[in-house]
Amino acid sequence: MKKRHLLAPGPTQVLPEALLAMARPILYHRGPEYEVLLASVREGLKFLFQTKNEVLLFTSSGTGGMEGAVVNTLSPGDRALVIRGGKFGERWGEICEAYGLQPSYIDVEWGRAVEPDLVAAALTADPSIKAVFTTHSESSTGVLHDIEAIARIVGKTPAILIVDAITSVGVVDLPMDAWGVDVVVGGTQKALMIPPGLALCGVSDKAWAMVQRSRLPKFYFNFIAERKSLEKNQNTFTPAVSLVVALHESLAVIRAEGLTALFARHDRLARATRAGVMALGLQLFTERPTPALTTIIAPPGIEAGAIVKRLRAAHGITISGGQAQLKGKIFRLAHLGYADESDVVVCLAALERTLADLGYPVKLGEGIRAAQEVLVQAC
Amino acid sequence: MKKRHLLAPGPTQVLPEALLAMARPILYHRGPEYEVLLASVREGLKFLFQTKNEVLLFTSSGTGGMEGAVVNTLSPGDRALVIRGGKFGERWGEICEAYGLQPSYIDVEWGRAVEPDLVAAALTADPSIKAVFTTHSESSTGVLHDIEAIARIVGKTPAILIVDAITSVGVVDLPMDAWGVDVVVGGTQKALMIPPGLALCGVSDKAWAMVQRSRLPKFYFNFIAERKSLEKNQNTFTPAVSLVVALHESLAVIRAEGLTALFARHDRLARATRAGVMALGLQLFTERPTPALTTIIAPPGIEAGAIVKRLRAAHGITISGGQAQLKGKIFRLAHLGYADESDVVVCLAALERTLADLGYPVKLGEGIRAAQEVLVQAC
Repeated sequence: MKKRHLLAPGPTQVLPEALLAMARPILYHRGPEYEVLLASVREGLKFLFQTKNEVLLFTSSGTGGMEGAVVNTLSPGDRALVIRGGKFGERWGEICEAYGLQPSYIDVEWGRAVEPDLVAAALTADPSIKAVFTTHSESSTGVLHDIEAIARIVGKTPAILIVDAITSVGVVDLPMDAWGVDVVVGGTQKALMIPPGLALCGVSDKAWAMVQRSRLPKFYFNFIAERKSLEKNQNTFTPAVSLVVALHESLAVIRAEGLTALFARHDRLARATRAGVMALGLQLFTERPTPALTTIIAPPGIEAGAIVKRLRAAHGITISGGQAQLKGKIFRLAHLGYADESDVVVCLAALERTLADLGYPVKLGEGIRAAQEVLVQAC
Repeated sequence: MKKRHLLAPGPTQVLPEALLAMARPILYHRGPEYEVLLASVREGLKFLFQTKNEVLLFTSSGTGGMEGAVVNTLSPGDRALVIRGGKFGERWGEICEAYGLQPSYIDVEWGRAVEPDLVAAALTADPSIKAVFTTHSESSTGVLHDIEAIARIVGKTPAILIVDAITSVGVVDLPMDAWGVDVVVGGTQKALMIPPGLALCGVSDKAWAMVQRSRLPKFYFNFIAERKSLEKNQNTFTPAVSLVVALHESLAVIRAEGLTALFARHDRLARATRAGVMALGLQLFTERPTPALTTIIAPPGIEAGAIVKRLRAAHGITISGGQAQLKGKIFRLAHLGYADESDVVVCLAALERTLADLGYPVKLGEGIRAAQEVLVQAC
């Protein structure tokens, strides 16, 4: 018997209340019960996104929400600026190009955060830029970009700022109205503690003005249609009802915890994990880490994939390796969503044993000890 | 205490095995367990769609699959023919128009099936037509279109036939390879007995040749990328894992029942329901009914909405009213997916009581009696 622990950066562990809610007989999406539930979900999402505006809901993976953000704001020939510094930053560019746009790029070395001044320079150099696309928590590298600073820069221009916050909403502060972020795309399989299948899009007034004029083609991911439906507590197309029911449960838990405690928890788990892996002599991949996950460079002579494999096969722990150019080089431990101190301890302990299994000179207990010191101080 | 029965044409009741499967801890979509599960789902879908080709899987409502069928086969300026005779037929036209195409239309009176000869005439009149779009089971009117005849006509031309089979896959025979249907779009919240959130697309070799040349913009709903991923037992983007797990359960039940028994069951329930409502003196809305649902004209002096409302409030039964131009005029009783004789009996009994409540001169028990005669003969 081996317990299994899912500590990959998404899907993450699902809240037990949400799992059980999904096992209840399904609701009719045009009936009064669903309407009451959706009204509550709408309020919860505004709370979570820290916005007065509607947060749109699409049945799709987070990428569908990203596509929606592109095709609902821009028109053929529009200039766009894309910040790339990881797999998900690149995705913004791929979507823009799929729709015939030719964005400019700021290419950031994988593992580093974008220098906000570069955004300012790009917008000054090309004042026709209509939208700036970036990632908040780039889960392929573990970097947290400085959205507050970027928003301050973009906010002074006519351009809108569109942020992939799929691994950051509910993990780290992102007050979209206060900071002036125009489109925030979230997913449900990360901090929201429910299975994948819903994309969430917060949209500012400045962005809505562009949505009204946008002429890129769209049908399924139609912001105007979905807002109109939501205002009547409906969805445009048949939604993933069981996921909306699960979301209702997780939003209740999130509201009860409160945003301050929610962000503090993620910060605490992240700091403890980082302290633990460093105490084992391992090196972090990035200097500006997201509290959603910790990216670690595989020690010399050990392939990252071997660590991932051994953790799963021998110790029941699912984490992620590196993607694309980082394959084999890094591994990623997540601590977001339905995660607490117990997950950090279990993960570090299994990592210590795995490293020992693989012949790495590990002082058993040393990672846990360092993590414990952070956790004790944080309480 | 009042038991609730969901007898609307979608979402339909969910298989208990699928509900419970969704309550299990979530699987990592890039792990070996999910790959084994997806391999089995792929086989099950080929069996259900009666095709040797891959059935593509997208996390979205059925409409997302419809959009995928348009944007992956056609190119700007392509001619298309759309058969409209209900809300879902109209949707094909709306999607084509959203992507800048100007389709020709065959407009069929709501409640009637398309005359296949009209399709032949349209294709002869305009041999440049690249694709014919139609609905199989049009759930807004309850009509079943003759796809076998239409496929025979389209198959003789270079055009492809694209069918919205969202309420017909698993309900009525649609052997896509044998009949030569080129794209079949299905959903999961109908005959597949699981919650909404997955769209399914079967694609013929003839259609794949067009997919290779298609130049309409697409990103999330990309057929080529998803086929490539599926061949490695992966999905392009994070899938709705819990729905795929549920689908695995329902496909096992469907394979065990077998397609012949599956179609016979739907036919039996449909005939019993029709016999029941006619015995109550009510009139069916269509002469070519789908076995997925029964559409009934509200009797003179009674608004269809009042029947729907009363059934739900007083008798715990959720059915659907009419949509668009049929609002207030018809109501729709579904009998698809996780439905059997008990649902027909419960539904007709509640309908009898509802009609009596509303002052309609109903002979109590008469509808049930007529349904029973069909059910007895069918065994």
